[in-house]
Amino acid sequence: MAKKIVLLPGDGIGPEIMESAVRVMDQISKSFNVTFSYETADIGGVAVDNHHTPLPQTTIEACKNADSILLGAVGGPKWDNIEVSKRPEQGLLGIRKALNLFANLRPIRVYKPLVHASPLKSDRVEGADILIVRELTGGLYFGTPRERRDNGNTVVDTLQYTREEIKRIMHIGFQSAMGRSKKLTSVDKANVLESSRMWREIAEEVSKEYKEVELEHLLVDAAAMKLITEPKSFDTIVTENLFGDILSDEASIIPGTIGVLASASLNDKSLGLFEPIHGSAPDIAGKGIANPISMILSVAMMLQHSLSMPKAAEVIEKSVERALDEGYHTGDLDMDGKVLNTVEMTDKIIEFM
Amino acid sequence: MAKKIVLLPGDGIGPEIMESAVRVMDQISKSFNVTFSYETADIGGVAVDNHHTPLPQTTIEACKNADSILLGAVGGPKWDNIEVSKRPEQGLLGIRKALNLFANLRPIRVYKPLVHASPLKSDRVEGADILIVRELTGGLYFGTPRERRDNGNTVVDTLQYTREEIKRIMHIGFQSAMGRSKKLTSVDKANVLESSRMWREIAEEVSKEYKEVELEHLLVDAAAMKLITEPKSFDTIVTENLFGDILSDEASIIPGTIGVLASASLNDKSLGLFEPIHGSAPDIAGKGIANPISMILSVAMMLQHSLSMPKAAEVIEKSVERALDEGYHTGDLDMDGKVLNTVEMTDKIIEFM
Ligand SMILES: CC(C)[C@H](C(=O)O)[C@@H](O)C(=O)O
Ligand SMILES: CC(C)[C@H](C(=O)O)[C@@H](O)C(=O)O
Repeated sequence: MAKKIVLLPGDGIGPEIMESAVRVMDQISKSFNVTFSYETADIGGVAVDNHHTPLPQTTIEACKNADSILLGAVGGPKWDNIEVSKRPEQGLLGIRKALNLFANLRPIRVYKPLVHASPLKSDRVEGADILIVRELTGGLYFGTPRERRDNGNTVVDTLQYTREEIKRIMHIGFQSAMGRSKKLTSVDKANVLESSRMWREIAEEVSKEYKEVELEHLLVDAAAMKLITEPKSFDTIVTENLFGDILSDEASIIPGTIGVLASASLNDKSLGLFEPIHGSAPDIAGKGIANPISMILSVAMMLQHSLSMPKAAEVIEKSVERALDEGYHTGDLDMDGKVLNTVEMTDKIIEFM
Repeated sequence: MAKKIVLLPGDGIGPEIMESAVRVMDQISKSFNVTFSYETADIGGVAVDNHHTPLPQTTIEACKNADSILLGAVGGPKWDNIEVSKRPEQGLLGIRKALNLFANLRPIRVYKPLVHASPLKSDRVEGADILIVRELTGGLYFGTPRERRDNGNTVVDTLQYTREEIKRIMHIGFQSAMGRSKKLTSVDKANVLESSRMWREIAEEVSKEYKEVELEHLLVDAAAMKLITEPKSFDTIVTENLFGDILSDEASIIPGTIGVLASASLNDKSLGLFEPIHGSAPDIAGKGIANPISMILSVAMMLQHSLSMPKAAEVIEKSVERALDEGYHTGDLDMDGKVLNTVEMTDKIIEFM
């Protein structure tokens, strides 16, 4: 099996951790029936520098022709003050839309050696295991009109969804819940928003096709509380774009570091974009000390969700877990054990694969 | 000085804790130069029962003629499944709009005896003191169109603000910061929303009038993380309606209970509506064991923000603090000391005034 992977290293530590990802994939191809070919393309700040746009057409084309896509990170102080349309994160928004990556999966997993680093008390954190399914190409992020009016005296953004858009993300939510503990929490603001009332209706409709899944509705404000007071009460969460943005970042503080969290953005084919949830960490870029774990776990998510290789994904996840359990970690992680640099940490994980 | 206070006890434990509020006000009038006259009106579920609407016109009129308004709580299972326009919380939304209560103040204060009850580790919680200023009558809550289209195949809500609406809440934000530690965090999603870009521009404009205040901008997703990882890094936060809804509820978990948190909703005159942030707790309604502290602290906020009696407000706040410090509390609070019922707890606070 030959798979074409587009690499979008991006900015800051992106290129360094992308090297770790490639080494892990090459290791996978030694024990599984797969070979990877790589094509590297620009996105974000580096694309602004090289092509005057955060998302060159050539990058979009390369991604469309790929089996899957890995992204490092985008952004940095160098591009903080340029016009909005060229800001590195416009590359992210653009590629989500161009490839129709409507389903964002954000697993929150807790690693034992890091529990004590959580701002939450350990008994609330230990054993938490949440999957947030966020709609990624609709809602306030892309609805129109989004404009100034009356000589700049009024401004509007539009929260817009079609029935189809809500339905398809709801199916991802239910399917994800089926693969987990069969409990789905649909988050909305149905006491205020018409879009949320439609969201809730469709959740009920779709739930008829997944009779085994227990569906509950939760208001977004209540969800923001409960994620912190009772993180273990959640299993799978499905929600719209902006609520998902806020809640998934909020939930990312549970495990005590964002350096071990990966994410997937999928379309309705098997194409997906996989990336760490952390940023480009410009302060440590080029020093060779960046934590490669989120990036390596992004490879695992790619194997599972895009390339139908769940066994290979598991090998990676288990190796990361073992490395942490044995105390190996990069300097950003507040835990006991041995501090390694990016290459050494990657070596360790590969050694355990 | 004679002040007309409208009491809106509402549903569940609302009436019980409102009695505590009245007793505290009567005590205030003994030591300060003020007399209170009370008028009780219906809102929420009880208004639906009595008048077939959660916000009768007579209630609006009474509130418009008042010097200030106290609200207990609205809602309960009895009214959970009626049509949207009659749901008790529509009473809340309606009165905010009818009285132009555009500025919602949500102080997050930590009481020592409750620190250990927080889901967060004590070192992060102790000493936290945050004021969230939430815009309350604009944005997605009231923007139009908000409707189904294309035979119900599309739905839109509208996030709308005028320059004036943003300006006036920004002034409240800066003025609040001036009365505190002179640091203001403006929360938006300027990397995605046009309304947030205007929000940020206006924040910068208005900041010129408050040179002593240090203004910082924070994206709402980052704010949702930082409220939990570094609550003490915040002083005053100003944000739009929906972000404020989510973040203020999230922040309310910091003190270890929502039973000690009050809120104010103000218009551009001195009229305000003051209420606990907790709900109507139907499960314990009528048992005489409800915690009156949030309601009593709502009276303190009223004295400070609506009736220009900051000294009287302080007397109440100090008495609540002393009662808790000495271990007196209702059964909902997870702390050492002596458990009292609603009337006894109110007695204790009055005794210390
Ligand atoms: C960079 C930004 C536009 C983006 C978003 O809001 O979606 C980011 O916060 C994310 O969650 O991937
Ligand atoms: C009841 C609901 C409409 C309301 C809101 O969202 O504003 C509540 O959550 C609040 O924060 O006061």
